[in-house]
Amino acid sequence: MKPLHIFKIGGNIVNNQKKTSVFLKEFSAIQGAKILVHGGGTMVTDLANKLKIPQKMYRGRRITDSRTLDLTLMVYAGLINKKLVAHLQQLQCNAIGMCGADLNVIQSSKRKNKVTDFGFVGDLSKKSVNTATLEHLLNCRIVPVFSSITHNGDGVLLNTNADTIAAQLASSLSKKYDVNLYLCFDKKGVLSDVNDEKSVFESLAFDEYQTLKKNKQIHDGMLPKLENAFHAINEGVSSVFICQAENFKSGGTQILSANTIIT
Amino acid sequence: MKPLHIFKIGGNIVNNQKKTSVFLKEFSAIQGAKILVHGGGTMVTDLANKLKIPQKMYRGRRITDSRTLDLTLMVYAGLINKKLVAHLQQLQCNAIGMCGADLNVIQSSKRKNKVTDFGFVGDLSKKSVNTATLEHLLNCRIVPVFSSITHNGDGVLLNTNADTIAAQLASSLSKKYDVNLYLCFDKKGVLSDVNDEKSVFESLAFDEYQTLKKNKQIHDGMLPKLENAFHAINEGVSSVFICQAENFKSGGTQILSANTIIT
Repeated sequence: MKPLHIFKIGGNIVNNQKKTSVFLKEFSAIQGAKILVHGGGTMVTDLANKLKIPQKMYRGRRITDSRTLDLTLMVYAGLINKKLVAHLQQLQCNAIGMCGADLNVIQSSKRKNKVTDFGFVGDLSKKSVNTATLEHLLNCRIVPVFSSITHNGDGVLLNTNADTIAAQLASSLSKKYDVNLYLCFDKKGVLSDVNDEKSVFESLAFDEYQTLKKNKQIHDGMLPKLENAFHAINEGVSSVFICQAENFKSGGTQILSANTIIT
Repeated sequence: MKPLHIFKIGGNIVNNQKKTSVFLKEFSAIQGAKILVHGGGTMVTDLANKLKIPQKMYRGRRITDSRTLDLTLMVYAGLINKKLVAHLQQLQCNAIGMCGADLNVIQSSKRKNKVTDFGFVGDLSKKSVNTATLEHLLNCRIVPVFSSITHNGDGVLLNTNADTIAAQLASSLSKKYDVNLYLCFDKKGVLSDVNDEKSVFESLAFDEYQTLKKNKQIHDGMLPKLENAFHAINEGVSSVFICQAENFKSGGTQILSANTIIT
């Protein structure tokens, strides 16, 4: 199968021009099929503060009311997405900025939660990704750049976690491609000690992760990213790394499936 | 040649949910190749006011400094563009939201003006439109939805007049398609008396327009739109109408080239 590289980058990259330049240059240089997924970091919160739109959180997760959805459309799908695309085009990388509504590429459903209403937040399923359309784009050597917005197919746009989008794209496309997924963030990898930047796990296997989780040795903020990473590796993605975007070549933490035999 | 319908809609549509619904339903129902180009009306000015970003104008034209460029990216390429795309997808119209940087489809150059610096404003030329890529999209039955943002190919995004984008797309694609261009706005057509909504010119030929312009019988605000309309019709576009988006089927003012013989 042909290789496909999928990167998710977050706020620490898109908020930093120098790091963006370093990463996009390396990303552009990768041969073959590739996809970029980006979040927006703190820019939505900053804009909400300036516009005095109160932000409600539930257990550390943003509640997306309709005004906040508009802010995510502005910041993620507009400001950040188009700057990344123009930068990639300058580097001769034939990028196209998309959200899940464009070409109906990612359909989600509005999150149902009995305890609280998260508002315009979309959850993905195995059927969310329109793989035929993505394959067509990739075969044309087009590089999709996704903002973390999806739609429900019924005219409603939904804010969706960028790690989840990257992981679902990876697992859905793993039937046709040898997919390498990089979930990038501000640390060099998963740390065994959150206060020690050097305590990077070289690899983390599913069983090991479950033990660490049970013993509450994993920082709460890392759980969603790790869940997405293990979802991807358990669904047929060839390799999954949690790493720093600007240093992805030097590795990070490799996520290993339940079935991996470490030699 | 195959027909291609290109519509430009402005603020009076995108600011009005009901009119947007009426127009998008009619637009979706058009058979064959089609492109939508949109401006953003007063939403950028509103956001600038809320964020206390001063807006400078020169002879009625916006000067786009870097903070204002960010606002246009947010409002045009993000908020408005993605809402239109999600709405069209709901109507089973396979839309993709784009700006000129996406797939390098429209390259512009930063406006040079000896008297004033317009900032991040892009002007188009005959070579601006990547017709091969657009043809490919149209052949795949994809419906491009353009926000009025272009790029210079060197990493810089530029705010560009939406009428100009629609007219240049029309003339560049007229070598391959039988192009029908609709420059829509809030009036039913070009008015001979700006205070009389019923004084719509059924048609306006280039010679006639030049006489009216010389005699200062054309409202200043209409000149850029008319210049774009005549540019298109004189460059090989099959038909050009200035009309209301929600009533485009009932006509408007048909723009006729210098060579048209009215029978």
